[in-house]
Amino acid sequence: MTYCVGLKLDRGLVLAADTRTNAGLDNIATFKKLHVWEKAEDRMITLLSAGNLAVTQAVVSLLSEHINSAPEGRPTLMSVDTMFQAARLIGSAVREVQAIDGESLNASAENFFVTFILGGQIKGEEPRLFQIYSAGNFIEVGNDTPYVQIGEHKYGKPILDRVAQSDMRLGEGAKMVLLSFDSTLRSNLSVGMPIDLLVYNKDSFSSERQVRIEQDDPYFQKMSQTWSNSLRDAFTDVEPFDI
Amino acid sequence: MTYCVGLKLDRGLVLAADTRTNAGLDNIATFKKLHVWEKAEDRMITLLSAGNLAVTQAVVSLLSEHINSAPEGRPTLMSVDTMFQAARLIGSAVREVQAIDGESLNASAENFFVTFILGGQIKGEEPRLFQIYSAGNFIEVGNDTPYVQIGEHKYGKPILDRVAQSDMRLGEGAKMVLLSFDSTLRSNLSVGMPIDLLVYNKDSFSSERQVRIEQDDPYFQKMSQTWSNSLRDAFTDVEPFDI
Repeated sequence: MTYCVGLKLDRGLVLAADTRTNAGLDNIATFKKLHVWEKAEDRMITLLSAGNLAVTQAVVSLLSEHINSAPEGRPTLMSVDTMFQAARLIGSAVREVQAIDGESLNASAENFFVTFILGGQIKGEEPRLFQIYSAGNFIEVGNDTPYVQIGEHKYGKPILDRVAQSDMRLGEGAKMVLLSFDSTLRSNLSVGMPIDLLVYNKDSFSSERQVRIEQDDPYFQKMSQTWSNSLRDAFTDVEPFDI
Repeated sequence: MTYCVGLKLDRGLVLAADTRTNAGLDNIATFKKLHVWEKAEDRMITLLSAGNLAVTQAVVSLLSEHINSAPEGRPTLMSVDTMFQAARLIGSAVREVQAIDGESLNASAENFFVTFILGGQIKGEEPRLFQIYSAGNFIEVGNDTPYVQIGEHKYGKPILDRVAQSDMRLGEGAKMVLLSFDSTLRSNLSVGMPIDLLVYNKDSFSSERQVRIEQDDPYFQKMSQTWSNSLRDAFTDVEPFDI
């Protein structure tokens, strides 16, 4: 399993992915699921992936290869003018992998199941955020619900539901996303540290605010502890039920 | 879908079930999923159900019919000496319904899927709590994890994970269970009010502390509001993330 969150705020984007990959319970490994393509002053594109690792890696490799070796005139992540076109390129790459591997995967009782979160900004546009499905189609995040989740999304949703607002500061957004991870990590073994986190400032066209948060990260540990204590206090604030 | 929780505390049991039943999104109805069998001074047995409503109702009806018309010597919920035997009776009833309806259900692409929470006390024993599966087998709750959930369990699990302890007072346990419902109701449309709640005091052998909590219940509304506010305060207590 996997857990990834994308958050679109007025001030930019927050994107985070865990790194656990497992084939069964006794075969776990760490793989990066957050990928970045960028060009200074022009674009910053991030893709987070969930699902069959062979498929998601193939999609990412195809997108990167096309940048270096696409036939003249064929659009790539480095040449498209809008994030909508970037989302369509990723959809096409998913369909290309589906055409190559889909039949064999189905024949061996594996599912062709992948989902992606695509976030970023291309010069001339605001930052945009998308969720892309196995079929290669996608939705774009609007203002009413400023986040998307892929993978094991249920445990970490209540905090997003209650707290997420477009006008949050980026540091608050990052904190909320990490709390959402904290709840998920506690309840699901197939989601694991470290967490890759990218905080994107609008109009920076740069992924420099990217960090890998390890198990022993002091901020994460303190956050988790403070949150646990505050939740217990919050619980005490509510009157006991009596009938 | 459904959401039910059973909690085993030193002082007794807390059991709660939602009442929403749906066949598709446009066909919803209210059905009681919390069933009680009791005999003063001797036993109090509660069964909460999730899954195919036709199957769970058939199981409950069989168990009740057996009490009135079982052949001489056949054990019933009113005659068994232990909760373990009660759990086995329910398992047998599940298998009986499976034998009658299972094949046709599978043939019509419906699943024979049910789960139950069984809680109660029979004179001579402590209160006990079980989770019973579609196959009719079951597990009993111990002291390490004092609760069980059936149905849509993920949204409401983080609060239980953090707060549940065997030595809580019953009113605190009931509050925690209702907060777990509050998170679930917010995130999943197929779980709906009213909630049936039973607070069982050890050695009372009575279900008298049973209540149906409606949408406009003042305690539930206040609890939900206080919790939301406290969570937002708790969120503020945590330092923002900065990289």
